[in-house]
Amino acid sequence: MSADDTTALPDQPLYLTVADELDLLIAQGQLAAGERLPSVRELSQRRRLSATTALAALRALERRGVVEARPQSGYYVRQRPRRLPEPATSRPPAAAKPVTVSSIAARLLAASNDPDIIGFGAAIPEADWYPVATLQRHAAQAARRHSQMIGEYSPFFGLPALRHQIARRYAELGVAVDEDEVVITNGCMEALNLALRTVAAPGAVIAVESPTYYGLLQLIESQGMKALEIPTHARDGLSVDALAAALAGPEGAQIRACVVTPAFANPLGSLMPERARQALVRLCERHRVALIEDDIYGELDFAGQRPIPVRHWDRSGSVLLCGSFSKSLAPGARIGWLLAGRHRDAVRMRKFTTSAGTALIYQHALSDYLRTQAYARHLARLRRLCANNVARYADAVEQHFPAGTRVSRPAGGFVLWVELPRGTDTLALYERALFRRINFAPGPLFSASGRYRHCLRLNCGRQWTPEVAAALQALGRLVETG
Amino acid sequence: MSADDTTALPDQPLYLTVADELDLLIAQGQLAAGERLPSVRELSQRRRLSATTALAALRALERRGVVEARPQSGYYVRQRPRRLPEPATSRPPAAAKPVTVSSIAARLLAASNDPDIIGFGAAIPEADWYPVATLQRHAAQAARRHSQMIGEYSPFFGLPALRHQIARRYAELGVAVDEDEVVITNGCMEALNLALRTVAAPGAVIAVESPTYYGLLQLIESQGMKALEIPTHARDGLSVDALAAALAGPEGAQIRACVVTPAFANPLGSLMPERARQALVRLCERHRVALIEDDIYGELDFAGQRPIPVRHWDRSGSVLLCGSFSKSLAPGARIGWLLAGRHRDAVRMRKFTTSAGTALIYQHALSDYLRTQAYARHLARLRRLCANNVARYADAVEQHFPAGTRVSRPAGGFVLWVELPRGTDTLALYERALFRRINFAPGPLFSASGRYRHCLRLNCGRQWTPEVAAALQALGRLVETG
Repeated sequence: MSADDTTALPDQPLYLTVADELDLLIAQGQLAAGERLPSVRELSQRRRLSATTALAALRALERRGVVEARPQSGYYVRQRPRRLPEPATSRPPAAAKPVTVSSIAARLLAASNDPDIIGFGAAIPEADWYPVATLQRHAAQAARRHSQMIGEYSPFFGLPALRHQIARRYAELGVAVDEDEVVITNGCMEALNLALRTVAAPGAVIAVESPTYYGLLQLIESQGMKALEIPTHARDGLSVDALAAALAGPEGAQIRACVVTPAFANPLGSLMPERARQALVRLCERHRVALIEDDIYGELDFAGQRPIPVRHWDRSGSVLLCGSFSKSLAPGARIGWLLAGRHRDAVRMRKFTTSAGTALIYQHALSDYLRTQAYARHLARLRRLCANNVARYADAVEQHFPAGTRVSRPAGGFVLWVELPRGTDTLALYERALFRRINFAPGPLFSASGRYRHCLRLNCGRQWTPEVAAALQALGRLVETG
Repeated sequence: MSADDTTALPDQPLYLTVADELDLLIAQGQLAAGERLPSVRELSQRRRLSATTALAALRALERRGVVEARPQSGYYVRQRPRRLPEPATSRPPAAAKPVTVSSIAARLLAASNDPDIIGFGAAIPEADWYPVATLQRHAAQAARRHSQMIGEYSPFFGLPALRHQIARRYAELGVAVDEDEVVITNGCMEALNLALRTVAAPGAVIAVESPTYYGLLQLIESQGMKALEIPTHARDGLSVDALAAALAGPEGAQIRACVVTPAFANPLGSLMPERARQALVRLCERHRVALIEDDIYGELDFAGQRPIPVRHWDRSGSVLLCGSFSKSLAPGARIGWLLAGRHRDAVRMRKFTTSAGTALIYQHALSDYLRTQAYARHLARLRRLCANNVARYADAVEQHFPAGTRVSRPAGGFVLWVELPRGTDTLALYERALFRRINFAPGPLFSASGRYRHCLRLNCGRQWTPEVAAALQALGRLVETG
């Protein structure tokens, strides 16, 4: 990464940003254990830094315990204590289940609103990972410029300028999207809600990843549908073979839709390989099963190579793509979208009867922002923040959690999936952790069949601080003492 | 009305505001045909106006053809050409129907977005009937003051300060509301959606007024429910006796909910008398049928005596009240609410899976605005604008529509329901009117059973202008020439 790409954190001196970048290279294994880091002179020349800044960066890494100084020789990457294995492919039950995760979710969300609790619970990064000041300035500007807009009904399917920007971004990825099929929604949740209700009726079976986002399971529950959990791997995501087997199985004919997050699924962080993504589209096409793609984490890849949505391989207009700015740009704007494909008219009707139009002010603000070059710079910074934090949290888990623990190694997003030794009960652990003012998301939340009782999800969206480090250490001890 | 209450229209001189007020007294019959108006001297003394302003007001009324000058004697209210009767109580079919009004509604809404078409279609008043500048200032202020809010998830059930303001306003009406049961929604449509899905499942029968709001019929359609139309009177609203008969009838046991707009129902403008409102609550209680109250027009009474919501008489927590600022204060803010009563937890879960939280910026802006005295002043002005416009539109219908026409005489809101001579086909009329660039809402839109083909709804929310007058005259002629 060149110095030009370096976007400083607010209130963070340059040397820490440089340290973060080196830290990431180490976490990703590009600088291996035992390897020598660039010297102060090399670093300052390569990155066009002062020698003082370069030295400060290396010393910061030393304080973090990531590198060690060897006299007369330089800085070397320290041996990691050990490397925990990834979780294995999930093996959910083969039958569809009615869903009942709501009560756990309600407690999790309540705890997430408590400022005294260390928030590893909900998947929510720090507000200042986002360009809040710039966006609020755009919002204030929109309020002044479009002074009539609060007095008028907003267009039901969204601001044309924003729909254009969204279509344009997909076009840049090579995904052909007609502006006319973009429906602006109140966040990704409304997009998922509209998509699911458009293609399936109560009683229908919906194929989902296992584990999967609890909001999706609650949505399926509230619609009186049933979730069929499909085996999913922490790195490669949903198993297309397993889905094919389910479609050929006893409940196959009742599967109306498959809801998948191909890129950086929540909670696993998995990324389906490109061939698997293509195969998934073909499989759903063959079985005439609607494919709902949750693309909310797509922009958050650590490598800066945004995965292409499965929608790209859709020939029949049957993929419904749900997206949002909630993770990538503006969690509080509540602006998402649905690319409705051939379901456009049905989706529009449901949007009208669900909430009519979405308020325009943030649609204007985001559309104005997207016309500038700022978004690319922000994304580069956000990706680095996510990558650094995920690596650091994973390291802390390796260091502090007991033997037998497995942890995901995602290539994007900002959550970790931790499989604890068999017999650990994360619902019981949850009570003890909350008592210590530590929040996390217990595993059973992510299953319609009560699985993953020995698993938990960690939100890595909180800036690394001594308090966070201490909380992770304490959590590891709680697991250990069972 | 005293001069203190006079709120001038933007860009409207004081004499026109005085003329509007007198016009309203005439329209409401408080100044009867043949009666003498106050003299210039009386008017200027009573209202503390200059003689010039008073005279200009009387002359404006003369130009409108509402009063006539008699030499040496003064101004007199003119005899109205005739007074059209109100529509009779509706007689919908006794069986519940699946709903299919969507295609008409889609065309209506598309035409409403066309600035070249005179908009008697959607129920949307002029933007400058609302305090847009003040509200947008509050929004810009909120963006500056709460600069982190676009970077954070918003509370799922709404901003506590706004929920407090809403509960307080109901408390002032004597309606006890717990802040905790207020769920902020994306407009009234989302409130209706959540309420209906909470108390009824697909296949359920929902009792509704006949005619009723097409958005509600589309919502029922999109949920796979059936609408049972209950006879409704243009002045007194839903017939509680008819609902009782339906509950005792063959489909009575399948009726899960009754959705009613007791105050200024759309499209009839009817207001249920207080005794009928009480009786409705008791009836639903007795039959354990959920009562969903649409209170969106409640603030828009012409007399300034806001009707008390039926929720007031609810003892069991079974009334779900849906409200919104969309008609009374800020159509573009998309902020509504649901008073969920004993269904609070179920509603909250559905709110989370429908759209998660609602964006905070307008919640802050409205909550700040409601803390000032401005809302009462705005409502006084808005009520007068609605009353004047509705009276004027009704007069135009009386003057220009053929014999056999009936027209509603609502006591609030801003729509008129017009029953044309039997045999008139408003769907055919709609095509001819659109060709002339006149939009209105054809009657069948308001029925699940294709009734009201000889009826139409007029939006009176467009400021009276020569173009509006000419369009109403042209519409009357189109009706006449069949």
